[in-house]
Amino acid sequence: MTQVGILGATGAVGQRFIQLLTDHPDFDIGVLTASADSAGDSYRSAAKWQVDTPIPESVADQTVRRTDPEAVPDDVDLLFSSLPSDVAATVEPEFLDAGYVVSSNSSNERQAPDVPLVIPEVNPEHLDLLAEQQDRRGWDGALVKNPNCSTITMVPALAALREFEIERVHVATLQAVSGAGYSGVSSMEIIDNALPHIGGEEGKMEHESRKLLGEYTDATIDWLDADVTASCNRIPTIDGHLENVFVEFGSDPSVGDVESALASAESAALPSAPDPLITVFSDPDRPQPRLDRMVGDGMGIAVGGIQETATGVQFNVLAHNTIRGAAGASILNGELLAARGWL
Amino acid sequence: MTQVGILGATGAVGQRFIQLLTDHPDFDIGVLTASADSAGDSYRSAAKWQVDTPIPESVADQTVRRTDPEAVPDDVDLLFSSLPSDVAATVEPEFLDAGYVVSSNSSNERQAPDVPLVIPEVNPEHLDLLAEQQDRRGWDGALVKNPNCSTITMVPALAALREFEIERVHVATLQAVSGAGYSGVSSMEIIDNALPHIGGEEGKMEHESRKLLGEYTDATIDWLDADVTASCNRIPTIDGHLENVFVEFGSDPSVGDVESALASAESAALPSAPDPLITVFSDPDRPQPRLDRMVGDGMGIAVGGIQETATGVQFNVLAHNTIRGAAGASILNGELLAARGWL
Amino acid sequence: MTQVGILGATGAVGQRFIQLLTDHPDFDIGVLTASADSAGDSYRSAAKWQVDTPIPESVADQTVRRTDPEAVPDDVDLLFSSLPSDVAATVEPEFLDAGYVVSSNSSNERQAPDVPLVIPEVNPEHLDLLAEQQDRRGWDGALVKNPNCSTITMVPALAALREFEIERVHVATLQAVSGAGYSGVSSMEIIDNALPHIGGEEGKMEHESRKLLGEYTDATIDWLDADVTASCNRIPTIDGHLENVFVEFGSDPSVGDVESALASAESAALPSAPDPLITVFSDPDRPQPRLDRMVGDGMGIAVGGIQETATGVQFNVLAHNTIRGAAGASILNGELLAARGWL
Amino acid sequence: MTQVGILGATGAVGQRFIQLLTDHPDFDIGVLTASADSAGDSYRSAAKWQVDTPIPESVADQTVRRTDPEAVPDDVDLLFSSLPSDVAATVEPEFLDAGYVVSSNSSNERQAPDVPLVIPEVNPEHLDLLAEQQDRRGWDGALVKNPNCSTITMVPALAALREFEIERVHVATLQAVSGAGYSGVSSMEIIDNALPHIGGEEGKMEHESRKLLGEYTDATIDWLDADVTASCNRIPTIDGHLENVFVEFGSDPSVGDVESALASAESAALPSAPDPLITVFSDPDRPQPRLDRMVGDGMGIAVGGIQETATGVQFNVLAHNTIRGAAGASILNGELLAARGWL
Repeated sequence: MTQVGILGATGAVGQRFIQLLTDHPDFDIGVLTASADSAGDSYRSAAKWQVDTPIPESVADQTVRRTDPEAVPDDVDLLFSSLPSDVAATVEPEFLDAGYVVSSNSSNERQAPDVPLVIPEVNPEHLDLLAEQQDRRGWDGALVKNPNCSTITMVPALAALREFEIERVHVATLQAVSGAGYSGVSSMEIIDNALPHIGGEEGKMEHESRKLLGEYTDATIDWLDADVTASCNRIPTIDGHLENVFVEFGSDPSVGDVESALASAESAALPSAPDPLITVFSDPDRPQPRLDRMVGDGMGIAVGGIQETATGVQFNVLAHNTIRGAAGASILNGELLAARGWL
Repeated sequence: MTQVGILGATGAVGQRFIQLLTDHPDFDIGVLTASADSAGDSYRSAAKWQVDTPIPESVADQTVRRTDPEAVPDDVDLLFSSLPSDVAATVEPEFLDAGYVVSSNSSNERQAPDVPLVIPEVNPEHLDLLAEQQDRRGWDGALVKNPNCSTITMVPALAALREFEIERVHVATLQAVSGAGYSGVSSMEIIDNALPHIGGEEGKMEHESRKLLGEYTDATIDWLDADVTASCNRIPTIDGHLENVFVEFGSDPSVGDVESALASAESAALPSAPDPLITVFSDPDRPQPRLDRMVGDGMGIAVGGIQETATGVQFNVLAHNTIRGAAGASILNGELLAARGWL
Repeated sequence: MTQVGILGATGAVGQRFIQLLTDHPDFDIGVLTASADSAGDSYRSAAKWQVDTPIPESVADQTVRRTDPEAVPDDVDLLFSSLPSDVAATVEPEFLDAGYVVSSNSSNERQAPDVPLVIPEVNPEHLDLLAEQQDRRGWDGALVKNPNCSTITMVPALAALREFEIERVHVATLQAVSGAGYSGVSSMEIIDNALPHIGGEEGKMEHESRKLLGEYTDATIDWLDADVTASCNRIPTIDGHLENVFVEFGSDPSVGDVESALASAESAALPSAPDPLITVFSDPDRPQPRLDRMVGDGMGIAVGGIQETATGVQFNVLAHNTIRGAAGASILNGELLAARGWL
Repeated sequence: MTQVGILGATGAVGQRFIQLLTDHPDFDIGVLTASADSAGDSYRSAAKWQVDTPIPESVADQTVRRTDPEAVPDDVDLLFSSLPSDVAATVEPEFLDAGYVVSSNSSNERQAPDVPLVIPEVNPEHLDLLAEQQDRRGWDGALVKNPNCSTITMVPALAALREFEIERVHVATLQAVSGAGYSGVSSMEIIDNALPHIGGEEGKMEHESRKLLGEYTDATIDWLDADVTASCNRIPTIDGHLENVFVEFGSDPSVGDVESALASAESAALPSAPDPLITVFSDPDRPQPRLDRMVGDGMGIAVGGIQETATGVQFNVLAHNTIRGAAGASILNGELLAARGWL
């Protein structure tokens, strides 16, 4: 078993990490860190546990440590990070200097040319950037990022359609409140309402998707040359991001071609990877957040409503934003790092 | 005062008609009709009143009549119809044969070449089709339709941008549950959820918007030659449709040009017309359904989030779906019919 | 394996039966019935599957039968019924005449003196009424009822406190929408709202709880002599009934006495019985519907907020209304019937 | 016109004060205060306006001042306070020393023997405590409190029933999220959920109601000698507290007696007082938060579901928690202070 740590273990994503790592076949939770206020407390008292399965007994009594390389036991080989991005920008380099491999969900550095932004089923080869990264940064460790939750939801579907030459994407999102963290969206803001704006989210979708779909050659990523335009909305849903995607292609695939390409998207041979990667629904009413967010144990991508448009194809896509879109994404990247010998 | 009637007065839209017509400066409710089951009952007992203002006393004790020309008093000159479309398809012609002017919210006949589909601020001149209509159909009466709620929300904004040559529109909607009628969406379907499909809605938006923006010449409407592609979603919101619109133009307007054109869209000189027609918000968080659906007493169009995209402009638009999008739309058309001498 | 059937298999409770019976250690689904309209269809096409786990493959292609003893295979020994109560009143006797054992969730006959109303952990001895029932009614079969979902939530906690002599109970409920069935509560009724009335529910709680807590002697149930007063409300929650209970006792137990009695309530030795029966929370914020309804796999009873009042004790209680409160309750009764040799 | 000020004008209750005072017949907003951070800013920029009517133009450009007697113009005669109670405990005395009359919604000092806790329709005579207050405290000003929102909802109904000798009250509340302030309840806490606990709320209801219903004699309040037991819950509703009340009386009133007493509860002769004070619904489904919270322009009390119980009477009561239950309550007390010559 690889000993792993969770940086920022008490927040909403941190709690998901714990839920998903309990009973993991290869990873064992060796350390939990949080801000200095909580250091020294038991996890039970430091975290306001909000997940709908009970807090694992094995974790409840662990002592929370400072988020500091000194506080992490030596036998820990892999760190998952769900720190706020401004904190991560300072703290992650300290762990990288100290030689740790970090699989991070935080948004800092995602667009850096020497930081692999990875979805294992989409662009595992981008991991090869790590040699370049160590070279440039002088780190003994290695830093891998997973994309933003709204990006992860859409990109596996787009990746399955790369063969048709994606030229233009318009996407509108209906995002769950958990994406903003435990107190990110107040109830007064969202009950009987929707918010037509999520700060920075549209840019993340537009840039990250092009990097993810880019080609790795010569220690650089050549971003996909396509227009991606996003409009992001928050709706009164707990978990599960639903997205309406309109794609225009260089070629002219039929609805059937698109459906086949999606349904046959390849899964990864990793413990947390869903199989199939993409579940295609024929009922146009599906996927729905509450009914379908747990497809593939929360790691699957659900697609439906595939239709021809005047200029291409439209479809809907759904994924669980705090599993596939956050904690599960980092864990999957951790599994890829392990499989490729980076631990 | 013109005596008006409401066909299908007990449903959700029927109740809005009553709320909006109480205290109307020119119209007086002369008759309320419903299905045969309710005929003879007082309105109070026939309708399960669900509007958040009390049932008007002047209406509560009116006797509900059958939806039949025989049951309508002779002094009624204008009928508002919010019948289910299959019922309307049979019943509206009976009233038209009998010489009534009908301003209808029902979806039947909206795309017929001799039936004006009208938003008074957008295409009042389409009313001239009525001469052709009477000619062709042999009706003494006249039938005017207003578009579907999701269409009405978007089209006033598009109309204000016609000068920039609209070529392509992608729109994703976040629609309130009231658009489906009182029992259209069950609570089990929608709490903590969203539905990515509303039967027939996408086609309505795609066709009705092109007819509304079309040119009237020679007793025909020349539909706008543009691609309109819609993706329609239901979310857990009571009232107010929010829509994300992406537009590509033949010309290359700046964000400022678009904003000016929207903010200066002309209002109509009719009692229920809002002034301004379009309220433009600079805060990207707005408009929001709960906060902004009552702009212009529920008859206004709210726009925000105007941004440049790689291929054009994107913005968000909001309107109250059962006021501007249904009962208020029919009343406004009734006011236009009165102003143009059709009563 | 005992072959079991589900009468009324396509509704919301019917779907829960299927979810809970898949992988049941002792019961195998032998037949699914529905109204005549659906008879002959595959279950997949007859039911609008709404549960958040996929429809079991083993069931999806079963042919739905008429709800008629003739249509049920001979090897089926136990029937679960979730028919509307007016239908059940006609149809259940046909199955009982035909010799079937019926464990029913329908509300008809619940207060009949010769029909056991049973929660296995509370009053298993009431099952002895069945001899009397067969005698009086001339049935070859046997009919057992489980109580209403709001009653089941509260009664296990009250049963654990019987030793303190319950004299008076006031209870206010916050009930989930699924209790009313798939289309029982429309979204327009409940979003940003609460309904202070559920037809017939208060009477059910007041009567059923006294019968359940009654003593069986001489082939009759002597109902508990206590005042039970209920006020029932519907709130915008999908699953899980939360109830505020105020109890006055003949004796004067301390909060600690009450907590001990609740925490040590005995579980039943049946496959679906949760252990512990009652989970007591010390955090006054718990139990909460979304976080705690799945305690004991949806079969547990969660209690919290135990406090002294001027006249007794108050506490909050929560259970999953369509698992412990409906389908799971009938299955548990089926398990009790099997254990006691009634199959 | 009396010049009034609002202490803590940028919060949720502060915004309601502004909405309700705009167009007030006797009061004119002379000053708005907030924390030092916002002092000097325009109100428009200092407040995140969240009310569903637009921010009044007359207020939007006012400069926000420090919450300090020095910063308040001399012509201001009455201050409304909606400060957090810990801030109010320090700051209100400074204004009282400086001679201001303060009508406060903050919870500090509500139970002090020389501070009148007033609902004008219930206990206006308690205002006479002010002479005693000035005497004891040495203030030139005068401090009046209104009760907590959940208390105000219930007490007008109880006051109407005083004649029947109230002995015991059990009440369970279903409270809206706005009662906790703008960010008091996160969306992740409350969507598809309910919270069975609101810190300190039960005690407030139990104590404040007995003080409000107490008798004023000899410069003291003799609290009502009755048991009041409350259980408080938060539900996913924006505005409007619904409460289930069970009352036991010394006398034995019929349901008709109770209904008459409620329906004929006297209104106050003050500008913001609703008439009738209590609206009694005969439909047991009413009152409902979304449909009925605006009864009496948000200042009315709605009652329904009156029924006999084994030991007394039960009913449901509803009021708008941020209008009648907070800002409107303070304004009504301000009107009473004006009418009684305290300004």
